[in-house]
Amino acid sequence: MKGWEFTGTHIPLKIVEKPDPQVKPGYVVLKTKAGGLCHSDVSALEHESWMPSFNVPVIMGHEVCGEIVAKGEGVEGFEIGDVVAVCPLHAKDGTTPGYTRDGGYGTMTTAPVEQLVKVPEGVTYAQAAAATDAGATAYHAVVTVGEVKTGMKVGIIGVGGLGQIGVRVAVVKGCEVYVATRKPEAQELAKELGAKEVKSSILDFADKNLDVIIDFAGSGKTTEDAISVVAPHGRVVLVGMACDFANVNTMSIIMKEVTLVGSQGSFPSELGDVMAMMATGELAPILNTISFEQIGEGIDLLTEGKVKGRLVCVYED
Amino acid sequence: MKGWEFTGTHIPLKIVEKPDPQVKPGYVVLKTKAGGLCHSDVSALEHESWMPSFNVPVIMGHEVCGEIVAKGEGVEGFEIGDVVAVCPLHAKDGTTPGYTRDGGYGTMTTAPVEQLVKVPEGVTYAQAAAATDAGATAYHAVVTVGEVKTGMKVGIIGVGGLGQIGVRVAVVKGCEVYVATRKPEAQELAKELGAKEVKSSILDFADKNLDVIIDFAGSGKTTEDAISVVAPHGRVVLVGMACDFANVNTMSIIMKEVTLVGSQGSFPSELGDVMAMMATGELAPILNTISFEQIGEGIDLLTEGKVKGRLVCVYED
Repeated sequence: MKGWEFTGTHIPLKIVEKPDPQVKPGYVVLKTKAGGLCHSDVSALEHESWMPSFNVPVIMGHEVCGEIVAKGEGVEGFEIGDVVAVCPLHAKDGTTPGYTRDGGYGTMTTAPVEQLVKVPEGVTYAQAAAATDAGATAYHAVVTVGEVKTGMKVGIIGVGGLGQIGVRVAVVKGCEVYVATRKPEAQELAKELGAKEVKSSILDFADKNLDVIIDFAGSGKTTEDAISVVAPHGRVVLVGMACDFANVNTMSIIMKEVTLVGSQGSFPSELGDVMAMMATGELAPILNTISFEQIGEGIDLLTEGKVKGRLVCVYED
Repeated sequence: MKGWEFTGTHIPLKIVEKPDPQVKPGYVVLKTKAGGLCHSDVSALEHESWMPSFNVPVIMGHEVCGEIVAKGEGVEGFEIGDVVAVCPLHAKDGTTPGYTRDGGYGTMTTAPVEQLVKVPEGVTYAQAAAATDAGATAYHAVVTVGEVKTGMKVGIIGVGGLGQIGVRVAVVKGCEVYVATRKPEAQELAKELGAKEVKSSILDFADKNLDVIIDFAGSGKTTEDAISVVAPHGRVVLVGMACDFANVNTMSIIMKEVTLVGSQGSFPSELGDVMAMMATGELAPILNTISFEQIGEGIDLLTEGKVKGRLVCVYED
């Protein structure tokens, strides 16, 4: 097998050849069909603070879709030939693809059965890969942590890889969605996704009495602003990590009994929900596909902020 | 009737005589039995920012227990002679005793039927008055907003008028209660109330994996510290208003999926729950009773921070 290996901060990924992974109890071996590129991989390449999360050298890539080519003892409910998406979290042994075991930037990989979700008909490999992290993380924030319900007024801050999915999930759930983003392109996209109104700042929706606001930016100020405009007994969900601190107005939190809650990761069941929305065509995030050889280049494009939508490597059959 | 009238910031309360209140539809007239003194009354006397909440001149006092001496048209479920506690919030006409209609620092007062809760046997007038705000507000924070359950590990920051009740409510609910307060007297009190451990700072409980932390201080730092030590998926309830802002660590909030939620006021049903706990003797907050004539002096003591427990004026029969 071949894969793009990560060895440490500031060292560009490079292609290595290594033996094919072997099957072991509770695990399947996958022929990779698609591997999503995530901005967090750029962060890991740039900031040493990420190193404790990795077990290097490792093939990067935590958004994995693959076909089962071997299954270990105790793997029930999945057969050789099944195409599956891999929830990157909640492995019994604590491993994460692309971090502590080889991931989706390689032609083959492995996954424990508890992380597997079958890819339904009508969902492409690239979509399935993007569903594992960008998709399910956004869904978790909006539906599970945000607790959005039909008819609610929902604010979304930021329309990047996750935000675009968050907007669409809230629209599909029957919410009135108000989007705050400064980028003209992202504003256009939000309108296409079904947002009711799009403005530069969440403060522009102060008169809307928003029930829930999902902050996919997390710049500190975005969270502070969300708390100031959310409705009494409203909910502000924090997902984006652009900044480590927010100077929140505690009087607003108390007088309005506002809830500020963090959202991180997702569960396999949520990955299944996201792919079900993709299968019906309700959710079709913008994906840009590249080949295995282009992964290094793809990381450079992400570093330069030149990617619209989500970048996914699709492997040749 | 006589009462201690508030006319504006920096002007000491003074006793005035005025005609007895008249009955009106949906309201009862009360002969005041007890009126609790609250530190927020001191704040209102000191800070002009409180003035918009008042309709002056007004007899102060939002913690009221009284005997019904007249009832207006449409008042059901209560009879003349009933002794009632008055929930200070949720009046249909939006009035609050001691703020926008005459309150508990007067020998007579009024209340709309929706704010009334009968005082059960075994509860003193002073307890009933203290239950209306200090009691029910602390209960609301711990039980309703804090969602504490038997067996949970609960942190309480601050052991003042509300905090002492919060500690006791959590203990009675079957929680393991860890209390943070710097005052030696308050530390002693917390132990007497059944706290499992008492320390100076909530940071001293970093190894306890606290499920819920109620911040009755609200100094900014106390909230920041609570977020840093609360367990993954834990809940931090903010009640105290010592400071207007807190510089919270958003990475902790996200990575642990922490909930920070404000708690303010209470409902009549919670006032009933608090008095039920007082009736069994499970909840017996420290109360210092004074006479009507001593209310002015009592405000001075509160201003100087010289009151331990809650100060309540008990009226002569």
